Amino acid sequence: MYRTHLDSLIVSDNTQVVTDMTIDRDACVVGVDFGTLSGRAVVVRVRDGAELGTAVHEYRHGVADQVLPATGRPLPPEWALQVPADYLDVLRTAVPQAVEAAGISAAQVVGIGTDFTACTMVPVTADGTPLCELPEFAENPHAYVKLWRHHAAQPQADRINELARQRKEPWLARYGGLISSEWEFAKGLQVLEEAPEVYAAMARWVEAADWIIWQLTGTYTRNACTAGYKGIHQDGEYPGEDFLAELNPEFATFVADKLDHPLSALGDRAGGLTAQAAEWTGLPQGIAVAVGNVDAHVTAPAAQAVGPGQMVAIMGTSTCHVMSGEVQREVPGMCGVVDGGIVPGLWGYEAGQSGVGDIFAWFLRNQVPPAYHDQASERGITVHELLSELAADQEVGEHGLVALDWHSGNRSVLVDHELSGVIVGQTLATKAEDVYRALLEATAFGTRMIIDTFTDAGVPVTELVIAGGLVKNTLLMQIYADVVNLPLSVSGSAQAPALGSAMHAAVAAGAYQDIRAAADSMGSVRRNVFTPVPENVEAYERLFHDYLELHDYFGRGANDVMHRLREYRRAALEGKS
Amino acid sequence: MYRTHLDSLIVSDNTQVVTDMTIDRDACVVGVDFGTLSGRAVVVRVRDGAELGTAVHEYRHGVADQVLPATGRPLPPEWALQVPADYLDVLRTAVPQAVEAAGISAAQVVGIGTDFTACTMVPVTADGTPLCELPEFAENPHAYVKLWRHHAAQPQADRINELARQRKEPWLARYGGLISSEWEFAKGLQVLEEAPEVYAAMARWVEAADWIIWQLTGTYTRNACTAGYKGIHQDGEYPGEDFLAELNPEFATFVADKLDHPLSALGDRAGGLTAQAAEWTGLPQGIAVAVGNVDAHVTAPAAQAVGPGQMVAIMGTSTCHVMSGEVQREVPGMCGVVDGGIVPGLWGYEAGQSGVGDIFAWFLRNQVPPAYHDQASERGITVHELLSELAADQEVGEHGLVALDWHSGNRSVLVDHELSGVIVGQTLATKAEDVYRALLEATAFGTRMIIDTFTDAGVPVTELVIAGGLVKNTLLMQIYADVVNLPLSVSGSAQAPALGSAMHAAVAAGAYQDIRAAADSMGSVRRNVFTPVPENVEAYERLFHDYLELHDYFGRGANDVMHRLREYRRAALEGKS
Repeated sequence: MYRTHLDSLIVSDNTQVVTDMTIDRDACVVGVDFGTLSGRAVVVRVRDGAELGTAVHEYRHGVADQVLPATGRPLPPEWALQVPADYLDVLRTAVPQAVEAAGISAAQVVGIGTDFTACTMVPVTADGTPLCELPEFAENPHAYVKLWRHHAAQPQADRINELARQRKEPWLARYGGLISSEWEFAKGLQVLEEAPEVYAAMARWVEAADWIIWQLTGTYTRNACTAGYKGIHQDGEYPGEDFLAELNPEFATFVADKLDHPLSALGDRAGGLTAQAAEWTGLPQGIAVAVGNVDAHVTAPAAQAVGPGQMVAIMGTSTCHVMSGEVQREVPGMCGVVDGGIVPGLWGYEAGQSGVGDIFAWFLRNQVPPAYHDQASERGITVHELLSELAADQEVGEHGLVALDWHSGNRSVLVDHELSGVIVGQTLATKAEDVYRALLEATAFGTRMIIDTFTDAGVPVTELVIAGGLVKNTLLMQIYADVVNLPLSVSGSAQAPALGSAMHAAVAAGAYQDIRAAADSMGSVRRNVFTPVPENVEAYERLFHDYLELHDYFGRGANDVMHRLREYRRAALEGKS
Repeated sequence: MYRTHLDSLIVSDNTQVVTDMTIDRDACVVGVDFGTLSGRAVVVRVRDGAELGTAVHEYRHGVADQVLPATGRPLPPEWALQVPADYLDVLRTAVPQAVEAAGISAAQVVGIGTDFTACTMVPVTADGTPLCELPEFAENPHAYVKLWRHHAAQPQADRINELARQRKEPWLARYGGLISSEWEFAKGLQVLEEAPEVYAAMARWVEAADWIIWQLTGTYTRNACTAGYKGIHQDGEYPGEDFLAELNPEFATFVADKLDHPLSALGDRAGGLTAQAAEWTGLPQGIAVAVGNVDAHVTAPAAQAVGPGQMVAIMGTSTCHVMSGEVQREVPGMCGVVDGGIVPGLWGYEAGQSGVGDIFAWFLRNQVPPAYHDQASERGITVHELLSELAADQEVGEHGLVALDWHSGNRSVLVDHELSGVIVGQTLATKAEDVYRALLEATAFGTRMIIDTFTDAGVPVTELVIAGGLVKNTLLMQIYADVVNLPLSVSGSAQAPALGSAMHAAVAAGAYQDIRAAADSMGSVRRNVFTPVPENVEAYERLFHDYLELHDYFGRGANDVMHRLREYRRAALEGKS
């Protein structure tokens, strides 16, 4: 049954023979990837990374961005919540299903590792109970999980940035000069200011990445990765009390009261699986549980991208870019640089595009007329496939459009979630496939902006490795190769984050000395799957400069219309309610 | 049967008693309005303007903007052709049907008047036969009618403008500093340069407005209105031979060879109905046929807007603005000022928006998802009605969008058909009704630009009278009132151009002394139907400034991206063919 559950295209190039460890030939690990809409468990053989079985569980409540499920009452714009019980359902259903699909005995499993969206925050009591599970808070939106793409803390983020600039806080440059509204401090300050009763009741403000480990091990551990990337932990410190007091006197003790906790390194053993978690998952009690981790960051070793300059783009609803570097540079507008943030011993760089697949899905739901749906249905293909097919027939530039991919804001290089989408060039001849292709291209230009910014800052990108669900869109992949003018490698696994989590479990279980060794044996990648077409590269070079000009015009203050539009919208909605 | 065919809301305020003419109590006239997609005939009673019967005939070939009907071969971008035989079908079908619907005897009809889209050009032989009807030219696109919205002569228009600027041609300022690619010279030069055999074979280059009169009377007359607005006839002259020779030596005698002809004043009798035309229409041979006229221009008297400062906006697929003024001013970016161009004795001003209803229709066809179509169908309303209803629930600014309405280029103030549409502010929460409303608003901002430009140039606009099919969208009308901050009057007739044509027929038949007298007795208008809501005016003032900033950025050269996008598109399509 070896690899029978896998994409038949996957080729492993694991050439290194494992000699320094004694690995049971049949030992397995479980990796669980908690995504935006669902959780995926995969059972992986420790000795060679073979993915033996997998299962997916969709969160019952999905993303609550319109109404609070408990009350049905509308949420303000830019909110995005989740229900933490949905995550436990993944442990209860997807894990045992994956074990069953793998056809192994649960007794073969020696460890479990997880990865999560980030920054996704859970307000909890001292024993880790989410506040939304307490009857007194069940109807309070602030008691729920604030998903990574909850962007309603932008006013708080703006104040953090403004004050940090004024005070010349040394940590600011580590985040490209801007703290995101998605992160721990902005979201925490929003809770304090909008729901002081929730803030007072929360004993800890916990990354979901760590909360799930708490559920598995019974004890709270805080991983170094999110603490560094999302929690402003740099050089052993968080922002100081005087800084926080200037933001809001009540916020002065935020770190001490809600956040501070010893940090654990990636790949470390967080603890053993509790009896209760063993019951949920059907796995043996006491097996190694790896320290919490982030979806993007675990993907790098899964795709064997653990060396300097190897950038991994995990492309799904959003795109996360992670890359290790030998030097520490301050790259403008990036999400952060963290010592050992991806693999121990190297500086981990992170960047991101807050909307990618989300934008395509939004377009499909909101701007594609019936004839396309009908045609796709008749042909038994998806509307995405139909649009991609029609768009693939076009020459570069044929649609006469250029778009900005900021429908969900801009995470890097501008770090501004109040930015929004633009499309220029529509005529009475513009069809759905034209706009679709322009949106695909816009996200490629967004990736190019990030790569160029890294390279300009002295952290050259030499290889781009694609992982995530969007890799299956070959038009999109070719556009990326042509726009960034680099050959694209593709993660060998179709479920790279879950594989990466399993690899960290193998390290936590002591099967490998470190994540690099695990990557060598268990990871896989296909090199140069898409290569740039010279004439497309040239045509996109022109279009990219048009993108760049609009990027700077709308994104760097020449015309602040996007912020004004947000302001009008907020005022109009407030006037209505 | 008085007014039985009319909208029951229409109220006439014809208070002046006709005393200076002897009008047969039962005398009628026929007005025929040749629009972009169809022709409409209306039978009108001379003594009071009562519209007794109407009929519409859709052109069999509609607008050929994708392929040439005769061959099915694709047309290049920006082309828009028509088939002249379709116009004769209107005479054969809609006219007798309207007479029948009116329940009158054809013998009561004393005159016929017409209006046409402009600038719509027909290449003909010396006897008026369209070249496309000759077997040798049937497959040549240049032998067909170039519809007003044929925008493929932009390169020629650019050269005309550049040369006129260099040579400081005095007529240039009369057209706001720019000659449109839609007009007689640019389109004529395109024929010469792309199809010299067609150019050589055409004895005359005739406005469709005049071609149809030729068909009705058997003789060619050239109306002063299109000669002035579209044919660069100013102060008794056309552009000189030396100017034309500099454009292209072969073009030097364009005026003398193809264009020049004595001009006829609006409302004059062009001739009597021929036997053949009497057979087509069923009307009495020999009755008065009025000089050719333009859809927009005949609408002003139909809505009793014959005084200075009374701007009429005829809102359909595009919008045409006409207004008379006591003084002659050169208004930047307007379509033209012509002595007696609307009513004799005043300076006629014309401006336009090249896409309005066209943009809404394009949006509906191309960007509205199935759920809206299903819901509209279930409720038995149109998708336009559904979207308008949803959009009407919003506060100003709630959608967070601002758009530029240049999907079909910009006719006034920028006079540039290579401009294109823009939408700024889309997020993952943006719905179809949001974009729809933003597009409605964008066209209102476009009208506001025109009104402000007139006022700034010393030709104040004191009243806005709306005519045309879009008047039935009350959301759109309210938005216009709020954006321009003027009360809107509404043409009393739902078929104002056809009524206006009929009024010119009445003047040509001698029933009224002039078009003003006819307007008093036969026209109708409802005053102040929509009045501005102060808080909306204030909110739109802000949004208009955002529109203005984008208008100038994209339209006045700060970022020439729209022209580059057109260039990429042309190059890509050429590379393909």
